[in-house]
Amino acid sequence: MVTQKYKDMLQKKSVIRTLSEFATKRGQEIGYENVFDYSLGNPSVPVVQDYTDNTIRLLQTKTSSELHGYSPSVGLPSFKEKVAASLNKRFDMNYTANHIFPTSGAAGALAHALRAVTSPGDDVLTFAPYFPEYNCYVGMTGANLRVVPANTADFQVDFEQFEKMLTSNVSAVLINTPNNPSGAVYSAETLKKLAQLMEDKQKEYGHDIFIISDEPYREIVFDGKKAPYVSKFYDNTLSCYSFSKSLSLPGERIGYVAVNPTCTDADLLVPMMSQISRGIGHNCPSSLIMMGVEDVLDETSDMTVYETNMNLLYDKLIELGFSCVRPSGTFYIFPKALEEDAVAFCNKALKYDLVLVPSDSFGCPGYFRMAYCIDTEKVVRSLDALERFVKTEYPDR
Amino acid sequence: MVTQKYKDMLQKKSVIRTLSEFATKRGQEIGYENVFDYSLGNPSVPVVQDYTDNTIRLLQTKTSSELHGYSPSVGLPSFKEKVAASLNKRFDMNYTANHIFPTSGAAGALAHALRAVTSPGDDVLTFAPYFPEYNCYVGMTGANLRVVPANTADFQVDFEQFEKMLTSNVSAVLINTPNNPSGAVYSAETLKKLAQLMEDKQKEYGHDIFIISDEPYREIVFDGKKAPYVSKFYDNTLSCYSFSKSLSLPGERIGYVAVNPTCTDADLLVPMMSQISRGIGHNCPSSLIMMGVEDVLDETSDMTVYETNMNLLYDKLIELGFSCVRPSGTFYIFPKALEEDAVAFCNKALKYDLVLVPSDSFGCPGYFRMAYCIDTEKVVRSLDALERFVKTEYPDR
Repeated sequence: MVTQKYKDMLQKKSVIRTLSEFATKRGQEIGYENVFDYSLGNPSVPVVQDYTDNTIRLLQTKTSSELHGYSPSVGLPSFKEKVAASLNKRFDMNYTANHIFPTSGAAGALAHALRAVTSPGDDVLTFAPYFPEYNCYVGMTGANLRVVPANTADFQVDFEQFEKMLTSNVSAVLINTPNNPSGAVYSAETLKKLAQLMEDKQKEYGHDIFIISDEPYREIVFDGKKAPYVSKFYDNTLSCYSFSKSLSLPGERIGYVAVNPTCTDADLLVPMMSQISRGIGHNCPSSLIMMGVEDVLDETSDMTVYETNMNLLYDKLIELGFSCVRPSGTFYIFPKALEEDAVAFCNKALKYDLVLVPSDSFGCPGYFRMAYCIDTEKVVRSLDALERFVKTEYPDR
Repeated sequence: MVTQKYKDMLQKKSVIRTLSEFATKRGQEIGYENVFDYSLGNPSVPVVQDYTDNTIRLLQTKTSSELHGYSPSVGLPSFKEKVAASLNKRFDMNYTANHIFPTSGAAGALAHALRAVTSPGDDVLTFAPYFPEYNCYVGMTGANLRVVPANTADFQVDFEQFEKMLTSNVSAVLINTPNNPSGAVYSAETLKKLAQLMEDKQKEYGHDIFIISDEPYREIVFDGKKAPYVSKFYDNTLSCYSFSKSLSLPGERIGYVAVNPTCTDADLLVPMMSQISRGIGHNCPSSLIMMGVEDVLDETSDMTVYETNMNLLYDKLIELGFSCVRPSGTFYIFPKALEEDAVAFCNKALKYDLVLVPSDSFGCPGYFRMAYCIDTEKVVRSLDALERFVKTEYPDR
């Protein structure tokens, strides 16, 4: 019989996807260049050329079985070794290949990591504003996602609320820095305090509490800064990464979980995640994609456009009277809407062909998200639309 | 806390994988060319050249966002359309793109299809001998896999046993034709009888019972014959396919579920499977792999070697006195062991560097599987080892 549970899920379509589909449809009417589509985090910059050249070379020189044969269910050894070496060099860690589990992007990484350290009925904490797909990943494991309210002053952690919610039923804390949708990057100070509190609670409760660290935006940080590496602060950390943003490869769905070598059961977690993969029938990412990526691990696409776009938008938003925390990274900005109901606000914006995402599904009502991974030329043109929108719809401000 | 359930699964390692790892290790000692490794179904013939040429051309001519941008969570439209068209042409079906769900190989296809039509506590029937990974796919949904005993006369269906086990608690029947490990291909007569019985039971119980049809070996059929297309016989069929064998692309993990357009909720099942994907974090296969495959859908690698190997092995096994049903397809053969305990039999074979898989995990004790997707030259050399093994270990036969 068709399963009612998944049938019911069809009603709860992603707001972001729905808006993105609206933008595509509107583009067919007036030309997509005239739709200021800030809905989807689809990287606009090209893949690194070395990735393309490397993949062509592989296809031209390797045998079919070298390239396309079955990979082990824990992942391709060469990919795992090179990821470990790259992380060790960049973040002063001690990973071996046995701590790296290749996945279908960050989504796959999060879903596997969560399942490996939670049981049905457990609580998983995350911090608002948060990526709404976390509901799906956590929900599928049978655990409950509980959302710590946002610290809207700077989108770091509200420790008072966090401590209150960090009960003995919590088995994992899911964090995302640099953050989608706020653009905040957790400071070393925030991470130290977070780690200390969690270590205290681990001792108090007598069981592990893992950090599941969602890091697809790790390489997109502004003002010449770097994002502190979460796993450096807390042993029980599973770092979930995707090459979607850093290499501009979202459609290839390639990422990994990096298991901190000093965490509990560090040598079992990758084999455990491979058992989870057996059950969901995923197994391992595509060989050709892993091989193409493994030699360009330390490169990134040219992502300066995101900082340029952020500055343009931030300045305009402030000029127009928005309240907004300046993003430190990612390609998102998260201003306060000009009325309490962010959905109403974003619906009005559509009249100006501005596609903004209301913040309700991010667990932080009254805000909106703009994904500015689009051409700067279009961002510039959108500023006029933004001004017209604000001055027409909110004349009394 | 690290989840005990997946930790426990580490004890139950796949017998096939374990033997394959043994073969690799033994190969390091005596040269892999001297290990008669019949353990793993890893295609030995090269990928079709058009696939490689096509992928290189894509990498050289398409833009980064065309090639590597996010694909919709229900899959790449061009891939879906072309798969539907190909199936319609070959099997006289009426699929549209909306009935095709791209997956991570047949494993992903089966896991999604099973989850879409079963609920925890339901029974899923399959027929011995069966691919042991079915335990993982079914187990992960919370349903129970129940195994209809083998019809060892010809490895078609034992209808008497099947009817007895087809209770109202059964929501899906998982079949595999051409069959791993027996090499049997279900005849049109078998499929007609199966469909009739299931339709009767659907009426009697007042609910749907789906066929989940596992078809990665659909294109490997011997003696110039073709495998009857299961979905043609029964409306409530979800066909699960992989290009691993037909194109020799196992490492790329690319396949699909094809939803029979006349089945219950035919237009909902693909979106439902995409919701399942959201939860397990898989989403969609790699864009580049889908695009590379979509233009070579009607091609296959040169698979004549499998028929050559089958005939060599079958004739030798019969000559040596084995009881064996001649395979009609796949690259497996499934003879009766020469003693009751197939594990003991296969352990003795290892002394002759013959890596055979005992049948216990296939739900049909007393047999063994040989995966003959290896070079014919090696098959020929293995025949001597087989003869020495049998004559030395079982001299009184």
